[in-house]
Amino acid sequence: MPAPQDPTHLPIREQMEKLIRRKQQEITKGLETLDTVKFRADSWTRGNDGGGGTSMVIQNGTTFEKGGVNVSVVYGQLSPEAISAMRHEHKNLQIPVDPATDLPVADGVKFFACGLSMVIHPSNPHAPTTHLNYRYFETWNPDGTPQAWWFGGGADLTPSYLYEEDAKLFHACHKQALDKHDATLYPRFKKWCDEYFFIKHRNETRGVGGIFFDDLDDRDPQEILAIVEDCFDAFLPSYLPIVAKRKDMPFTEEEKQWQLLRRGRYVEFNLVLDRGTQFGLRTPGSRTESILMSLPVTACWLYDHHPEPGSREDKLLQVLQNPIEWA
Amino acid sequence: MPAPQDPTHLPIREQMEKLIRRKQQEITKGLETLDTVKFRADSWTRGNDGGGGTSMVIQNGTTFEKGGVNVSVVYGQLSPEAISAMRHEHKNLQIPVDPATDLPVADGVKFFACGLSMVIHPSNPHAPTTHLNYRYFETWNPDGTPQAWWFGGGADLTPSYLYEEDAKLFHACHKQALDKHDATLYPRFKKWCDEYFFIKHRNETRGVGGIFFDDLDDRDPQEILAIVEDCFDAFLPSYLPIVAKRKDMPFTEEEKQWQLLRRGRYVEFNLVLDRGTQFGLRTPGSRTESILMSLPVTACWLYDHHPEPGSREDKLLQVLQNPIEWA
Repeated sequence: MPAPQDPTHLPIREQMEKLIRRKQQEITKGLETLDTVKFRADSWTRGNDGGGGTSMVIQNGTTFEKGGVNVSVVYGQLSPEAISAMRHEHKNLQIPVDPATDLPVADGVKFFACGLSMVIHPSNPHAPTTHLNYRYFETWNPDGTPQAWWFGGGADLTPSYLYEEDAKLFHACHKQALDKHDATLYPRFKKWCDEYFFIKHRNETRGVGGIFFDDLDDRDPQEILAIVEDCFDAFLPSYLPIVAKRKDMPFTEEEKQWQLLRRGRYVEFNLVLDRGTQFGLRTPGSRTESILMSLPVTACWLYDHHPEPGSREDKLLQVLQNPIEWA
Repeated sequence: MPAPQDPTHLPIREQMEKLIRRKQQEITKGLETLDTVKFRADSWTRGNDGGGGTSMVIQNGTTFEKGGVNVSVVYGQLSPEAISAMRHEHKNLQIPVDPATDLPVADGVKFFACGLSMVIHPSNPHAPTTHLNYRYFETWNPDGTPQAWWFGGGADLTPSYLYEEDAKLFHACHKQALDKHDATLYPRFKKWCDEYFFIKHRNETRGVGGIFFDDLDDRDPQEILAIVEDCFDAFLPSYLPIVAKRKDMPFTEEEKQWQLLRRGRYVEFNLVLDRGTQFGLRTPGSRTESILMSLPVTACWLYDHHPEPGSREDKLLQVLQNPIEWA
């Protein structure tokens, strides 16, 4: 599809940028109502490259051990090599070719990308970790003609102890947001989430899932933006009640230890498998601290650890090995 | 070079296998002299694929928080896809072609690989982590003719606090082992180590280095085996005296915290950059627990943490950003 041109609206990228900045404020304010410490903002620019962002970070709170809500708005040139690397995941990206020589154009394509990404790790082992990310991407050919655009993102929940009612609430809120637009979206995005957040070398999903999508350009961009906004709106009602209920639950040292082991798995997924993390860390000029904001304060690894069959820890593993339909 | 054929000696692979099994015993016994707990052995086989190994693991010791000394001896078929993936690193691997059709032979090449790999994480933040790995690899064409062989490996030291005398001892022992054979080896392998264990996204090396080499087949395999044996012999004298001196040093909570942050970097290197880990985790049938034995019991991440300029923590970073000639 061509890049969106809509004379009656601001260009999609400007609307998306406004949306993510507004949501960064709303979400951090919402989370702060459950903690005694506040997020602090940290703005950065890309140096020689275009754009920058604002990381909002909470650390060592009573409720939240670590959390980051990061907005970034970046633009510049994609080299033919970068396009090649990205084409594995985004088939609609093209390497522009000089019609005279049939060779790739050396200065590649111009791109614009903006998104909000968030990871929240509560302290209490009964309160789940959550991740959310919504992003918009656009490219143009060197002659200024639009080439490709898409939206991507989702939100998912990673408990250390399974509370079925929590998983159901999280999924139900996101299903409701998507069903408003198209009843086929939730089942598709739920499955996509289970498949994407699968830790192959452990044969288990990272958590109890949620929704995930990428390369979404199958309808009017204004309509997709409305879907993304509704998904954003679904987040706080899907997560705050869970944390409110779990944050002060008593827990044992063994339960804390199990949470740290699960965080080890979180680190494994993010560092070994997450495409965004891998791509970011390999991209010159990207900001390592913002990319690795997703990692927990502490994580733990024990050799060949297996929970006792039938224990609560084992029950979580069963669900991670056999994803459930929660909504 | 052709696969080694030496009628007066056991084939190289059998000698290497004996060497690594003997060294697994020697090294674990040596390390146990500094702790109150013992290593425990855990043998495994590759299921449908050929071979297996023995992991020797120490955990929650007084001196060693976690350590593993793993021997593996595996063999089987490399698919043309696996060879393609490996050829990025090992240029002398060839994809056999059917001379009649000029197409890759579907059943690929047979391979044999054996090695010892070890990571030791002491508890005391003043006692450095160490890693050692020596391995031998051999391939044959489907018709049974030898194709390629090589040795690889090395040993390196990762302190949280820099003690120059420790880095000097570790390097001097390994230099001495290599100098016996060829005075050009140590400078080459030392540089290779600094380059390999470089955490690009942090712009720092993992530790104070040591030696590293790969694809070594530039001389008689019997001679390389003798080099590897001397490097193995250099290990305990290069490391035990350091741990003996550091293991009971008093330390503060802040020093422990710094050690956990450094272990976070260790996890980042191993999961994001280490070729062996990445290759292993992506290989069907490989044993995740043995591959991830290298991870510490605990690691820590704080957002945008920087030690105070001039502090001991900062002095370590200076050296990691500007590797030093220690021997």
